[in-house]
Amino acid sequence: MQVAIIGITGYAGMVLYGLLKKHPGIIQINLYQHDLIEPTPLEELAPQYENTNKAVQPYDSAEIIKNNDAVFFATPAGVTSKLAQPFLDADFPVIDLSGDFRLKNGAEYEKWYHKPAADNDELAKSYYGLADLSTNPGKNYIANPGCYATSVLLGLAPLVQSDLIDPDSIVIDAKSGLSGAGKQLSESSHFIQSNENLQIYKPNEHKHIPEIMAQLKQWNPKVDHIQFMTTLVPINRGIMSSIYVKVKPGVTEAMIKEHFENVYHSSKFVKIYNHLPTIKGVVGTNECHIGLSYNPTTHYLLVDSVIDNMIKGAAGQAIQNFNQLFAFDADFGLQLNPVLP
Amino acid sequence: MQVAIIGITGYAGMVLYGLLKKHPGIIQINLYQHDLIEPTPLEELAPQYENTNKAVQPYDSAEIIKNNDAVFFATPAGVTSKLAQPFLDADFPVIDLSGDFRLKNGAEYEKWYHKPAADNDELAKSYYGLADLSTNPGKNYIANPGCYATSVLLGLAPLVQSDLIDPDSIVIDAKSGLSGAGKQLSESSHFIQSNENLQIYKPNEHKHIPEIMAQLKQWNPKVDHIQFMTTLVPINRGIMSSIYVKVKPGVTEAMIKEHFENVYHSSKFVKIYNHLPTIKGVVGTNECHIGLSYNPTTHYLLVDSVIDNMIKGAAGQAIQNFNQLFAFDADFGLQLNPVLP
Amino acid sequence: MQVAIIGITGYAGMVLYGLLKKHPGIIQINLYQHDLIEPTPLEELAPQYENTNKAVQPYDSAEIIKNNDAVFFATPAGVTSKLAQPFLDADFPVIDLSGDFRLKNGAEYEKWYHKPAADNDELAKSYYGLADLSTNPGKNYIANPGCYATSVLLGLAPLVQSDLIDPDSIVIDAKSGLSGAGKQLSESSHFIQSNENLQIYKPNEHKHIPEIMAQLKQWNPKVDHIQFMTTLVPINRGIMSSIYVKVKPGVTEAMIKEHFENVYHSSKFVKIYNHLPTIKGVVGTNECHIGLSYNPTTHYLLVDSVIDNMIKGAAGQAIQNFNQLFAFDADFGLQLNPVLP
Amino acid sequence: MQVAIIGITGYAGMVLYGLLKKHPGIIQINLYQHDLIEPTPLEELAPQYENTNKAVQPYDSAEIIKNNDAVFFATPAGVTSKLAQPFLDADFPVIDLSGDFRLKNGAEYEKWYHKPAADNDELAKSYYGLADLSTNPGKNYIANPGCYATSVLLGLAPLVQSDLIDPDSIVIDAKSGLSGAGKQLSESSHFIQSNENLQIYKPNEHKHIPEIMAQLKQWNPKVDHIQFMTTLVPINRGIMSSIYVKVKPGVTEAMIKEHFENVYHSSKFVKIYNHLPTIKGVVGTNECHIGLSYNPTTHYLLVDSVIDNMIKGAAGQAIQNFNQLFAFDADFGLQLNPVLP
Repeated sequence: MQVAIIGITGYAGMVLYGLLKKHPGIIQINLYQHDLIEPTPLEELAPQYENTNKAVQPYDSAEIIKNNDAVFFATPAGVTSKLAQPFLDADFPVIDLSGDFRLKNGAEYEKWYHKPAADNDELAKSYYGLADLSTNPGKNYIANPGCYATSVLLGLAPLVQSDLIDPDSIVIDAKSGLSGAGKQLSESSHFIQSNENLQIYKPNEHKHIPEIMAQLKQWNPKVDHIQFMTTLVPINRGIMSSIYVKVKPGVTEAMIKEHFENVYHSSKFVKIYNHLPTIKGVVGTNECHIGLSYNPTTHYLLVDSVIDNMIKGAAGQAIQNFNQLFAFDADFGLQLNPVLP
Repeated sequence: MQVAIIGITGYAGMVLYGLLKKHPGIIQINLYQHDLIEPTPLEELAPQYENTNKAVQPYDSAEIIKNNDAVFFATPAGVTSKLAQPFLDADFPVIDLSGDFRLKNGAEYEKWYHKPAADNDELAKSYYGLADLSTNPGKNYIANPGCYATSVLLGLAPLVQSDLIDPDSIVIDAKSGLSGAGKQLSESSHFIQSNENLQIYKPNEHKHIPEIMAQLKQWNPKVDHIQFMTTLVPINRGIMSSIYVKVKPGVTEAMIKEHFENVYHSSKFVKIYNHLPTIKGVVGTNECHIGLSYNPTTHYLLVDSVIDNMIKGAAGQAIQNFNQLFAFDADFGLQLNPVLP
Repeated sequence: MQVAIIGITGYAGMVLYGLLKKHPGIIQINLYQHDLIEPTPLEELAPQYENTNKAVQPYDSAEIIKNNDAVFFATPAGVTSKLAQPFLDADFPVIDLSGDFRLKNGAEYEKWYHKPAADNDELAKSYYGLADLSTNPGKNYIANPGCYATSVLLGLAPLVQSDLIDPDSIVIDAKSGLSGAGKQLSESSHFIQSNENLQIYKPNEHKHIPEIMAQLKQWNPKVDHIQFMTTLVPINRGIMSSIYVKVKPGVTEAMIKEHFENVYHSSKFVKIYNHLPTIKGVVGTNECHIGLSYNPTTHYLLVDSVIDNMIKGAAGQAIQNFNQLFAFDADFGLQLNPVLP
Repeated sequence: MQVAIIGITGYAGMVLYGLLKKHPGIIQINLYQHDLIEPTPLEELAPQYENTNKAVQPYDSAEIIKNNDAVFFATPAGVTSKLAQPFLDADFPVIDLSGDFRLKNGAEYEKWYHKPAADNDELAKSYYGLADLSTNPGKNYIANPGCYATSVLLGLAPLVQSDLIDPDSIVIDAKSGLSGAGKQLSESSHFIQSNENLQIYKPNEHKHIPEIMAQLKQWNPKVDHIQFMTTLVPINRGIMSSIYVKVKPGVTEAMIKEHFENVYHSSKFVKIYNHLPTIKGVVGTNECHIGLSYNPTTHYLLVDSVIDNMIKGAAGQAIQNFNQLFAFDADFGLQLNPVLP
């Protein structure tokens, strides 16, 4: 197969390109950049590619469709929706890493993203690809979930689907490394500001809240809201979502553990641990590690869900979705070692 | 005045010594070490003191009482209680940075500390010195609060004292730098393990839980439990306690803000901010910065309370307690600049 | 005394302001900003000053001269020289933290700084204040040395002044934390780029090279060149200069050590160590720690010279120069504890 | 092929195991541990392997030889030499990641390693496998080079082999991340000590000095000594060797560049850059990136040579040597992406 990446210069595009190069089902990767006018050597756009001989083509939907079997959008929110139309019209396979097609309601998108939304009937064509828990019903436009959303939803699914917890009690304290803040220079990602520091950001305004809520509600309509807060921590990669929920009376620790193990029994990527996992165990991989800690005094359960935000939270899950769509093995291109030590 | 420090080689003792050297009310600091047999040059015990000419004396309670006006215990939990008797007997001024006299109940101490407790009547003689919120009733034995406890109690006091929140809803996600884990070598504080990582530790077993609970219950007996979790983050100094509480119906954001400002109006060290404070603003100082973020959808309030664990969470608050006991100005020895940039 | 700071919003200005507030000889600090039009609350210019009530005035040389006894320029290179004229004309005391008056030759300044230089006769009025090694001959315009220059010159002085080394053999590998790169956002100080990385920068083009050379040549005309290279390391503060020099035949390790001890015998800030000092011992202080390691096989000597780039390398040395000018004790305002742990 | 790893619990063994699992020529990896008495689940020895079902066998040379086609020693220096005899006797393929067989002279080994050496005739059987520059003459016992040695030798080879530099002028300032210091707890790798710090260590006593010297002398007998110093920097992985050499009169920058490009023209792993490479470009890969900066004033050349100490400096080069020995493609198992962002 031949695949296209649009948006190679951002972090997600870069990681995606690295992974796809090893995918046994792909023989060629064609690179495009939405803001180019003419073909340009990759190393001019991103100096880390010095010594590679690869050109990047300008965006041209007809060309892309003609020369590829699928396209990955690694373009920013607000940009993707402007480029997606021809692919939707042609029912061409798209894996979209941006947030533009994750919400089904344009008005809600505009409320959280502060950008113009795609039309609601376009949004309706997309499939939210939480790859470890859902199966593509045959849709060709896949909205790849957000990084926080992935770690939170994988951590909450067994509890919410089975109605084991008080749906009003969900408190999520999520921590992310700086790669989540992207390549764009900003004060909060200036080394001096972020190093030796912790920074809570976008309180109650994070774009992943509606995406998480939509999925939770679909699993269990009793879930009406979540308290979700994000903190920047001075590491490069990784997300830890510390999820606090009040367990319903009568639900035991053993029942909870069993539920998690059942839900993820056959998963190649989600693993339930007997200890509380740390970020180091997942960075570099497409895995989600989950640990549980029940407090019999408070009846709160802590779910500790960790992922690599760039892989499971972006490029890796995109490949999972690609594999599902084209019936490749789930872990094609995703047999990865953690970055240890 | 002359003061003694017992336990100069640990992190808290080191910071305390540095601060006391600048205290305008102190003319001499005498150093003692509980496990010494004979006087020893300080630089032999701690190489960072090379080029200072200072000796450390072996522990001798009679000598200490004779030559000093007050003593600071910077000894580990389990050690202090074995050394404290003569000072309690003599009603000699003690500021105790360890956890040995914070709990009033020996059995509870042993449950959480896994070490033998002091006698209950000894414990009864001590005063829990949460210096920004309480006034020493004239007791000479001051138990200096724990670092997490300080940041949590200062963040919760206005809410709990005034009954503004659902007392069953308190969830605390506290993050600490590695200095909180002490000087002792351990796997979790090995650079390779802690750097580029987040580690949840001692889930539901942290020693500061009973200390926090005892104070909260005293303020408001309706508080029956807290969900308290601690995560090690790869920074040297600082604690951020992210405190989540459900606000009672009818309580508005403005009322909450006002309460915080009233409670800390005259405080030299606790400051209420309009934004969510970060750790960098307090490291190096004895300040506690508090920010608030109310979520009208979930009715949860986030209290973001940050301190320098070594100063406000240990040596600085010890000096505050010392100042109170001897009627010095609250900020003697504590006019400090944050470590910026 | 009353003193002025021009340029409070940069890192050096911020640190300087913090230190001057504790200086026992100063009763008021007036803040000015060269690019302001009207008085502005400090916290609007720099959010870390929230909760302080301090205004910043626009730059007005006549006002500054009228209301102050001395002025500190913490303005960038290229800016200072444009503002300095009235102060030079009035022979008003200036401590200039920028690089604009460190070189005596305008053409050389322009070659290294790529900015217009001050006139040569203005440059001639300034005094290069390497405070631990020279005494102000009575000049009111003090050019405060650069951070790298300070660590290198203090490390080389005893060797170069006494002609103990091969003057052609000087190789300096200097490492600096990111605060040295300033507050300005840039790719190399983006957290993701600088964290978990080492970056050599400005090879053979660093502005401090001519400043170091001028001083070395003055001490010993045989020194014709130095090989000086700088590497950014992922820490906030601190410089380590690893200085390699070939020792002349017949010069012994003991002779070298003795020379260093003699030169810095009475210094309050420069200390010679028996081990190789690390950065942690000096961050937060105005000290320079020096260690020596002689290799009898290669006849190379390593001089390990470490400073806090923001204090000894900027604001602290500026205060030393201020103290010299006004005959205060050398360590007024500079009795500081290292940031340990 | 089936291969054995002895010493899976150290950092090098862990990385090696991860890489070998993807090697297309290997169908099974058998794990052994020299200090085990009975078969033990891997996750008991190293908790990061929870959820894998892999057993580790006790060391038994006969069993290892019977069941494997080659063995990798990832055991510490001083241990390997005690275990190697049966493999040498059987002329069984060994790739030895320890330092025990890198030096040909037992007395020199003992001087630098402070441990008993293997016999000189055993040492003579081994081949020093600097894989990018030498070809195995058919020896079955391969001593894999040290991490620093690899980065230094690859950086110096084109200069030393072609006699382009003053052989007396070699000064190497090498910086390493903490993984180089190993898994063993120690004060210098305690987070609080190493974070926000730089630490020069083992001045003039580093074990890699004789290994580098032996190779350099073999290339060019005029090289009599090197000045080599190592500094610990607060990153997990990576080595940057800043190599300073005085270029001979008449040698131009262009000649140097050309030499480097010729020497590494056909190398899959050593790449010459137009800029000065940083560590981030190589971490996660088996590559060595080299940049050059010539100073026409001082006639010094800086060679900036960066590698991932765990891969090119250990496990990756071991696999290169394995590939050479068994005539696999050079990059089998070594097509790796850098850890970016």
